Amino acid sequence: MSQIKILLDEHEIPTHWYNVVADMPNPPAPPLGPDGKPVGPEQLGAIFPPQLIEQEVSAERWIPIPEPVREAYRLWRPSPLYRARRLEEALGTPARIYYKYEGVSPAGSHKPNTALPQAYYNREAGVHRLTTETGAGQWGSSLALAGRLFGVDVRVYMVRVSYEQKPYRRSMMQTWGAEVLASPTDRTEAGRKVLAEHPDSPGSLGIAISEAVEEAATRDDTNYALGSVLNHVLLHQTVIGLEAKKQLEKAGEYPDAIFAACGGGSNFGGIAFPFLADKAAGREVRLVAVEPTSCPTLTRGHYAYDFGDTVGLTPLLRMYTLGHDFVPPAIHAGGLRYHGDSPLVSQLHAEGIVEAVAVPQVATFEAGVLFARCEGIIPAPESSHAIRACIDEALRCKETGEAKTLLFNLSGHGHFDMAAYDKYFSGELEDYEYPQEAIEAALERLPKVG
Amino acid sequence: MSQIKILLDEHEIPTHWYNVVADMPNPPAPPLGPDGKPVGPEQLGAIFPPQLIEQEVSAERWIPIPEPVREAYRLWRPSPLYRARRLEEALGTPARIYYKYEGVSPAGSHKPNTALPQAYYNREAGVHRLTTETGAGQWGSSLALAGRLFGVDVRVYMVRVSYEQKPYRRSMMQTWGAEVLASPTDRTEAGRKVLAEHPDSPGSLGIAISEAVEEAATRDDTNYALGSVLNHVLLHQTVIGLEAKKQLEKAGEYPDAIFAACGGGSNFGGIAFPFLADKAAGREVRLVAVEPTSCPTLTRGHYAYDFGDTVGLTPLLRMYTLGHDFVPPAIHAGGLRYHGDSPLVSQLHAEGIVEAVAVPQVATFEAGVLFARCEGIIPAPESSHAIRACIDEALRCKETGEAKTLLFNLSGHGHFDMAAYDKYFSGELEDYEYPQEAIEAALERLPKVG
Repeated sequence: MSQIKILLDEHEIPTHWYNVVADMPNPPAPPLGPDGKPVGPEQLGAIFPPQLIEQEVSAERWIPIPEPVREAYRLWRPSPLYRARRLEEALGTPARIYYKYEGVSPAGSHKPNTALPQAYYNREAGVHRLTTETGAGQWGSSLALAGRLFGVDVRVYMVRVSYEQKPYRRSMMQTWGAEVLASPTDRTEAGRKVLAEHPDSPGSLGIAISEAVEEAATRDDTNYALGSVLNHVLLHQTVIGLEAKKQLEKAGEYPDAIFAACGGGSNFGGIAFPFLADKAAGREVRLVAVEPTSCPTLTRGHYAYDFGDTVGLTPLLRMYTLGHDFVPPAIHAGGLRYHGDSPLVSQLHAEGIVEAVAVPQVATFEAGVLFARCEGIIPAPESSHAIRACIDEALRCKETGEAKTLLFNLSGHGHFDMAAYDKYFSGELEDYEYPQEAIEAALERLPKVG
Repeated sequence: MSQIKILLDEHEIPTHWYNVVADMPNPPAPPLGPDGKPVGPEQLGAIFPPQLIEQEVSAERWIPIPEPVREAYRLWRPSPLYRARRLEEALGTPARIYYKYEGVSPAGSHKPNTALPQAYYNREAGVHRLTTETGAGQWGSSLALAGRLFGVDVRVYMVRVSYEQKPYRRSMMQTWGAEVLASPTDRTEAGRKVLAEHPDSPGSLGIAISEAVEEAATRDDTNYALGSVLNHVLLHQTVIGLEAKKQLEKAGEYPDAIFAACGGGSNFGGIAFPFLADKAAGREVRLVAVEPTSCPTLTRGHYAYDFGDTVGLTPLLRMYTLGHDFVPPAIHAGGLRYHGDSPLVSQLHAEGIVEAVAVPQVATFEAGVLFARCEGIIPAPESSHAIRACIDEALRCKETGEAKTLLFNLSGHGHFDMAAYDKYFSGELEDYEYPQEAIEAALERLPKVG
C-alpha cells in the first residue's frame, strides 16, 4: 500500500508565520486616508491591538507564532496533506494531485488559523471583547471558537437574512458561546439609520461591517476582527503553506502548480505565499488564484484604490476591485463574493508573479461532486473552485502526457452547504458571467485619491 | 508542550478485526425462527453475502480485514486519539480523559467502518446492488459512500418525514451517488399496503426496513445492509478499539473505564470489545454502555427473544428490549432510539461483564456544549451521551482524588444536528423518563418462543 495521507507531528506545527512582504519585488502600496495620505499605524489603534498593527506593516520575513497560539492550533493542526490517488485514477491523468485539507478544524475551514491569533493578541492587549460581521457564518463561527479558547467575548453581527434562513451556523456560534445579533440592529447608528429607511431590511455584509466597526470604534473595551483581505490575516494563514511544503518534502515532491480559491485572498495567500519565497529565489512554481466568473475581481477588475467596505468607512486599499458598490449576484460560494481582494495578492498579480483564473459555477459543482465520489470528503463550494482549476490542469497533463505535481487547498468541508448541492442536483444552479458594462461603469465610481 | 493528539501511521490500521465471541464465557444465544428453532446461515443467504454470514456466526478471535477495505479505510483511518486537557482543566479533575474521534470519516461518524466491508463483500459475491433504510440519514450516507468507493449501487429508503424535513443528509447521499426514496413508496408490497391505509403516512424506520428487506429478498441482484445490532457489524467496528488501545499504549496508558453511547450497540462494541479480551484475561477495566433515559433498553428493558424490526419480519434475537412495537419518544439522539440492542452487548450485560447507565437528554446537551467549548469539536447528540457519563466519572474522581484514566468514543460530529442544539439553547428540550407501565406492558407482547 502506498501512502495517501502525509501527517506531521504536533511539534512540526510551524514556529513562525511567513511574511511575503520580505520577498516582494516592491514594497506594498500603503492604505490611504480620505485625504490621500498613507494611514499611519496609530489611526488603526482604535479597533486593532498593537501587535496586529505591527504585523500589518511589517517587512520581517519570519514572525514568531506565540506559544499559546501554537498550543491552541494543536486542537486540529498540523492538518493532513492527501494524495488524491482515486481522483487521479478517475481522471486518467499522469499528474500527481495533492491537497491540503483545512476542513479538519472544529469550525470546518481555514478561518480559525487567523481567528486564534487575533483573539490572543487582543487579550494580551487587555481587550476582552471583539465584534465582527458574518454572512453565512464561516468567519463568525471561527472567531466564536477562538474567543472561547482565549477567554474573549465575541459579538457577531450576522446578516439578518442568513440569521433567519441559515440557523445552523448561528447555533454553532452559540455553542461556542458567542452572542449573535441579526443585523441591522437598533444598537448602532449605522443599524438605526438603515432600519429607519427600511424597517424590514434583510441586511447585507456591508451593513454588518459598519455596525461591527462602529461598535468597536466607539467602545474602549472592544476591538474589531476581520477574516480576510488584510496583511496580518494572510500572514496567519501561511501555516497552511508552510506545513504543506514540509509534507511534500516528506513525499519527495515539489509542486509545479498550486491552486486555491480567492475571495478576500486568505485561502490563496495561506497556501501560496510560502512557495513564493522559492519562486523569488528562481524556482519554478505556478501560483494560481481561482475566482468565480460571477465575481471576477482579479481577472477582470480594476487595479485601483477603493474602499474595503460598501459604505466607505475603511481606508482606501490598492487592490483589484469591481467597485465598492458591487452587488454580488446570487451564487452559493458566499465566501468568494467580495468586491475587492487582498492588497498583497492584488499587487503580486499586477506584477505578474501570481496568476488568476475565473471558473463558472456549475463546473465547480461538477468538480466538487467528482471529488467527493473519489475522495469521500464533500468540499465547500469555495474550495470546489480550486478543485475545478486543478482538475482542468490535470486533464491538460493527460493530453500532453506531463507528470506534473499539482497541489490545491481544500479550505473547508461542505457540511453547511448541502442546500447548494441540493440546488445543483435539482438543476437550479446557473452560470453567471459578470457583465462588462458593470465593470466599466464601476471605473467611474471609484473614489478619487488625494 | 505536551502532546494532545496521538496519531498512528496508515500501516498501523489493524490487519484483523477482533471477534469478541472468542472471549465470551458462553456462546452467543442463536437467532431463532418463528418455529423457535435456530436460524441457519443458509436462511440468511437471500439478503446477505456468504462472507458476512460466516462472520455473523464465527467464533474465531481474529478475522482478517481484506486489503481493499484497509486501502479504503485509509481515506480517514487511523482516526486520532485526543487527550482532552482543556476539558480536564475545566472540570478540575485529576482524571486523565482521552477520546477517540470517529467524526473524521467523510460521513462524519463511525458508521463507514462497517459500510465499507459490507459493500466490499457484496461486490466480491457478485452483488452490485444494496438496499438499506435510514432515519435521519447517518447510516444511509455511510452506505452511499461505501457503495461509491466499491462500485455498488445503493438504494436508500429514507423515512419520509426525514426526507422532507432533513434534506441535507439526503443531498449528502446523492452527492455520493446513492438513490434516495421517501418511504413508504409504491414500489414494494409493504409500502403499498401502508399507503393504501394512510396515503399521507410520514413513514417510520420500521416501514423503511420492511421495504428495504422486501426488495432485497425478492430481487436476485440485490442484497440488504444493516448499520448496527448484528454480530458482523460490531465486528467491523472493532477497528476503533484496536486503534485506541495502540494509541493509549503509545501514551503509556491503560483505561480504567471506557464509555460509549449505545443504541444498536455498534458504537459501544466497536470501542469496548477489544478491551474485553484483556478483561477476560483478568485485567480490570470497566466497559460502560450509555443510553438515554427515554429509551432505556439495557438498564430497564427485558432480556428476552424479540423481533429486530417493528413489523416482525426478522428472526427473533435474544436481547434487551422494550418491545418491538416500542414507539420512541421525540428525542434528538436519533441513533439511540432502537427498541432492542445488539445480542452480543445484551448477553455480556446479562452476564455482568459490561455495565450500562442511562442519562437524561438535557444533561447530555450540557455535556456536549461544555465539551465543544473546551475541545472545539461539536459532538453528535449520540456521542454526548458518552461525554456525559465520562464527565460524571471525572467529577467523581475529583471528589475522591483518584487519577483515573478514562476513555470515551466520540463517535461523530454534530454538524447535521445543529437544529437540536438550537432547541437546547432556546430551552425547548425536555427530559423524558420512559414510563414503567409501558415497560411492564411490553413484557406481555413479547413473542412466544417455540
